[in-house]
Amino acid sequence: MKTNINSKPASKAGVNIAILGASGYTGLETIRILLKHPKVKIKVLIGEKTKGKKLGEICSSFSYVELPKIVSLQEAVFKGIDVIFSCMPSGKLANIIDILPKNLIIIDLSADFRIKDINLYENYYGNHNNKKFLSKFTYGLSEICRKEIKRSKFISCPGCYPTSTLLPLIPIIKSGIVTMKDIIIDSKSGITGAGRNLKHELLFAENTSSFKAYGGGNHRHIPEIEHHIYNNTSKKVNIIFTPHLIPINRGILSTIYIKGNIEDIKKLLRKSYNKEKFIIVNKEGVLPKISDVTGTNNCRIGFLAHNKGNYVVLVSVIDNLMKGAAGQAVQNMNIALNYSEDLGLDQQSFWP
Amino acid sequence: MKTNINSKPASKAGVNIAILGASGYTGLETIRILLKHPKVKIKVLIGEKTKGKKLGEICSSFSYVELPKIVSLQEAVFKGIDVIFSCMPSGKLANIIDILPKNLIIIDLSADFRIKDINLYENYYGNHNNKKFLSKFTYGLSEICRKEIKRSKFISCPGCYPTSTLLPLIPIIKSGIVTMKDIIIDSKSGITGAGRNLKHELLFAENTSSFKAYGGGNHRHIPEIEHHIYNNTSKKVNIIFTPHLIPINRGILSTIYIKGNIEDIKKLLRKSYNKEKFIIVNKEGVLPKISDVTGTNNCRIGFLAHNKGNYVVLVSVIDNLMKGAAGQAVQNMNIALNYSEDLGLDQQSFWP
Amino acid sequence: MKTNINSKPASKAGVNIAILGASGYTGLETIRILLKHPKVKIKVLIGEKTKGKKLGEICSSFSYVELPKIVSLQEAVFKGIDVIFSCMPSGKLANIIDILPKNLIIIDLSADFRIKDINLYENYYGNHNNKKFLSKFTYGLSEICRKEIKRSKFISCPGCYPTSTLLPLIPIIKSGIVTMKDIIIDSKSGITGAGRNLKHELLFAENTSSFKAYGGGNHRHIPEIEHHIYNNTSKKVNIIFTPHLIPINRGILSTIYIKGNIEDIKKLLRKSYNKEKFIIVNKEGVLPKISDVTGTNNCRIGFLAHNKGNYVVLVSVIDNLMKGAAGQAVQNMNIALNYSEDLGLDQQSFWP
Amino acid sequence: MKTNINSKPASKAGVNIAILGASGYTGLETIRILLKHPKVKIKVLIGEKTKGKKLGEICSSFSYVELPKIVSLQEAVFKGIDVIFSCMPSGKLANIIDILPKNLIIIDLSADFRIKDINLYENYYGNHNNKKFLSKFTYGLSEICRKEIKRSKFISCPGCYPTSTLLPLIPIIKSGIVTMKDIIIDSKSGITGAGRNLKHELLFAENTSSFKAYGGGNHRHIPEIEHHIYNNTSKKVNIIFTPHLIPINRGILSTIYIKGNIEDIKKLLRKSYNKEKFIIVNKEGVLPKISDVTGTNNCRIGFLAHNKGNYVVLVSVIDNLMKGAAGQAVQNMNIALNYSEDLGLDQQSFWP
Repeated sequence: MKTNINSKPASKAGVNIAILGASGYTGLETIRILLKHPKVKIKVLIGEKTKGKKLGEICSSFSYVELPKIVSLQEAVFKGIDVIFSCMPSGKLANIIDILPKNLIIIDLSADFRIKDINLYENYYGNHNNKKFLSKFTYGLSEICRKEIKRSKFISCPGCYPTSTLLPLIPIIKSGIVTMKDIIIDSKSGITGAGRNLKHELLFAENTSSFKAYGGGNHRHIPEIEHHIYNNTSKKVNIIFTPHLIPINRGILSTIYIKGNIEDIKKLLRKSYNKEKFIIVNKEGVLPKISDVTGTNNCRIGFLAHNKGNYVVLVSVIDNLMKGAAGQAVQNMNIALNYSEDLGLDQQSFWP
Repeated sequence: MKTNINSKPASKAGVNIAILGASGYTGLETIRILLKHPKVKIKVLIGEKTKGKKLGEICSSFSYVELPKIVSLQEAVFKGIDVIFSCMPSGKLANIIDILPKNLIIIDLSADFRIKDINLYENYYGNHNNKKFLSKFTYGLSEICRKEIKRSKFISCPGCYPTSTLLPLIPIIKSGIVTMKDIIIDSKSGITGAGRNLKHELLFAENTSSFKAYGGGNHRHIPEIEHHIYNNTSKKVNIIFTPHLIPINRGILSTIYIKGNIEDIKKLLRKSYNKEKFIIVNKEGVLPKISDVTGTNNCRIGFLAHNKGNYVVLVSVIDNLMKGAAGQAVQNMNIALNYSEDLGLDQQSFWP
Repeated sequence: MKTNINSKPASKAGVNIAILGASGYTGLETIRILLKHPKVKIKVLIGEKTKGKKLGEICSSFSYVELPKIVSLQEAVFKGIDVIFSCMPSGKLANIIDILPKNLIIIDLSADFRIKDINLYENYYGNHNNKKFLSKFTYGLSEICRKEIKRSKFISCPGCYPTSTLLPLIPIIKSGIVTMKDIIIDSKSGITGAGRNLKHELLFAENTSSFKAYGGGNHRHIPEIEHHIYNNTSKKVNIIFTPHLIPINRGILSTIYIKGNIEDIKKLLRKSYNKEKFIIVNKEGVLPKISDVTGTNNCRIGFLAHNKGNYVVLVSVIDNLMKGAAGQAVQNMNIALNYSEDLGLDQQSFWP
Repeated sequence: MKTNINSKPASKAGVNIAILGASGYTGLETIRILLKHPKVKIKVLIGEKTKGKKLGEICSSFSYVELPKIVSLQEAVFKGIDVIFSCMPSGKLANIIDILPKNLIIIDLSADFRIKDINLYENYYGNHNNKKFLSKFTYGLSEICRKEIKRSKFISCPGCYPTSTLLPLIPIIKSGIVTMKDIIIDSKSGITGAGRNLKHELLFAENTSSFKAYGGGNHRHIPEIEHHIYNNTSKKVNIIFTPHLIPINRGILSTIYIKGNIEDIKKLLRKSYNKEKFIIVNKEGVLPKISDVTGTNNCRIGFLAHNKGNYVVLVSVIDNLMKGAAGQAVQNMNIALNYSEDLGLDQQSFWP
């Protein structure tokens, strides 16, 4: 199903966009980015619960911004559309992808097509409704899978936790310099990572002034991380992963404990990401903080050796809505369309 | 220097208190607790930079509260005082302890007398100015060292990170059921843990909406943790420790990665802390959050088995100003004076 | 319906409590206070959505606390109960009060019986289902209505905004020293004031890093404020009121603009509240902040003269869950039962 | 001292910038904007305390960004510079402006040249060190003073509170439809408004979970507001102003109480700002929140009629670092250089 992207008519004059699931946090962030992207036009916004509304009615920061009214999938007119971003919760796109027009680029931000191994997928997510599409989707970890993305029409963007951990881990695991199979990942995420859902646990009062671990030792992102480490390095690792919730809106910080030689790891990270615009490898011992990347598509990686033994601590930070979701999705569109990779993504971090 | 506490005149009628370092966060918290303690009177407040002021001038939540004026150490009158709480920064008490009157109970909240091994101490803190007192101080980890505290006049309260990690770790390491020598501790602390110091990195604007790891792989709390694990279990472990800063005021959450059998660990934690008023062992798989203990002297411990291998994740939470500092200090005073251990410490967690 | 409280059997040995609406923020706060109140036992917790559960299942900070299981109203056994706190949303108690046993003290935290003028009530809240009870309830603004509360079995606690504004305003309006009929009140509240409801606008991500005004120029608390100013001072004022939402959990700060002589106002506030334990009148020009009262039942009042004209700015702060709800409710119970007014309410403010 | 801007060599090819006071919050924000401005190059960064450092050493979000090293004023080379932004604290620029090269555009973000009446200035700020420059500076309230700015080389940007209040007030006061001379302004600001100063009151722990009013009834922004209302409308008003501090980083919300006819006010606001890109007048009754404008150069204005009397409440929000400081400064540069006014300022609000 890989197609020659160069044949698509839009790449010179710009492309027209439809967005499925416009009113969640990743949908809103995708729109926020695309509104300033010099090569795109947002033509269709699709939402089931919100159909008939303007985006500004759902989210006042978009009122007085010119955007099409939200329509239901049934009402949506895809004629002239070049790219669809699917920002719906996991499980939805698989159900409807068959009825979407062919010939479009589809960039999915959900988990539906991230894992190629159907058994692994169904262990964690339950029944998959569209197995035949699994193999058509390319995993959209931009810096690692760039070549495949360039040739793809169907791109499945990584989860936010996997993005923050695979970027530092894949090159060093691939090189064979990590000397222990067990890798402990202690991740902390801002609250937008949990979506715009009406749950008590997402209320302001339940989170401010607090902090918690969650998940039951078996978070859905574990198989995604192990699976794509294996796919990209041919090495099996055992990920011990604990996610936590920080009382802030945006950002993931992952603290990763591996064994290996700090000099080797330093050199390899430098070499791997030397030319990458969106990946910054800090000086040894300088650990990044979330505000270093807020509002950017960057991943910053810090590292230091523990004083005893040969443990190395990697700390990576991303903005979960940008590099962890909408930003990487747009980066993947840029890659797929042969645009400069940072079109629409060239922000300085938003601080203070 | 152990003395028979029963000979002290105050234990029936209540005791008189002096506080060194009244205006930092741990000093203020000690005062906040003691104001409601049924057996104590705060008689002397000592501060160098703040001498001559009322506490309410430094911290408006104490204005209109009856308290003695702050005096310098030189001006302080210790006659009639039974207990001194030293809430000064590390390095200060060692300098002046010789001039303090004998016959008082001294409860230190700094690091000065936490580590008995002078070489280990000086590696991390620099020159120690009062080595002869090192052996006189009992380590004040209340539940673990209760017997020694009961017989002591000099009590050195543990650091906040060590309290949150030693409480879950000591019993299970002692029992020999932890099967790996390397223990990874990923800790997250509220900002009051860094003290009331004028540093750019403690400003509101530098912390809100962000999160960071800090320390250089060699935090001062590592030797304290390893040292007291050894002292209490005769086992040498290798602590890999990373502290982080959460944009909240109070609370520490430590995520601890060990190897062992979950059933053994569960039974042992239950048995060890069954009768402890301040230690709550959650059900398997139910991880505590910081707001569960905010404002209390409790330590809550959760645990779960990782889906693969035999990793067990322990999560412990404390309020760093309470069980991690002033609360445990008052608990130690209660122990030393044969008071009911929870006098002044019987709070329900402050939430929402 | 006023009864002689002294005839009730409970006042010596302590009283037994039932709580209607246990799982909202005011219910939880009432329970938190009563758990440490030396004279009460919580015997019955009532909730419709939560019946059959333990409170710790709804709110983990109460797990491992000994409390009765939540039951439905139908299942509730009121035998032996002395006091009911009704913490249900407005409109509920009026519906069921007829089926509650007589002879109990009922303390209502909702708006159902705050306004005596039925037309005024129905203009703002819609149809009232139990008009005959309106006159039986005493308005529970403790310091102002103490005498009536002492003789009452039915107490309707003020709203949080009215509490923060009536306390500073009533004495000075009554004295006739306020020279303009229009009073502008600009109030700011923490988010728990909006209740534990599943609404998008109460999610963490929608509030953190933001701040907003709300209400349409006609908030329900306006008639309550005007009504009780009139009831207590016989003066008609015109309240221009704008509420705002602060991204914090607890606290209200009301900035009140009046015209008058600063010296008169100062003297009158001092005189009025001189002997009140829970009301602190700051020095002229020293404005209180919310953290001065967090976790306390206090109202702090600051004031200053504007540089030109004879405008005086009053700033009052309360903890909306304490003096603005559960704290004042317990204070009212203490008054009604002839207990010392600060039983269970003697906290130092919770800061930092 | 008005000069013909067209004679400057830079306007086609772009301009070169120097920044005085690079490391405060407004300096950092100015740099953040200018880094993405298509027509400028940052050539010189000047700081006294920070000289010799890279900006990334002071603020990690700028590490790995290409910028000149910070130099002292003495070391600074102004050759080739077209525009200076002075982001120093008030009182500094007046001291050194004489030694700056002539022929440059100077855009000042401090208070030094905001008030033309020297007596008024010195009442609030103390001695002014460069009175002769007072008249050379144009007040940089972009939408109101656009014509003057276009012809100016010296632009004094308004304070953040004045910006948020003058924009809604000037047109309606000018039109004569405001019927009361006293105007009450209740403003709330995020903490960056207080600058990056080492003061206890700016620490994280002193602000989070709290909220306060400050100022003594006589804030420095009062004369600025009254002065420029008079300058622009020839009407004398009496501003009663209370500033408050919100525990967030960015944003000002001003609640303004005036008397007048809501229909007149609505029409006038619409007409005045109809064509302004950066000013959004909300529908009647829809009040804006701070997150509507975070990260943008916008001012949003809402309004509603109070239910009784003819009070109208205006609510205006800005991002204090953008429209309230650096954003408006860049807008003024764009105006002065005949650039499109939104160059570098075309952001969608940063939310969530």
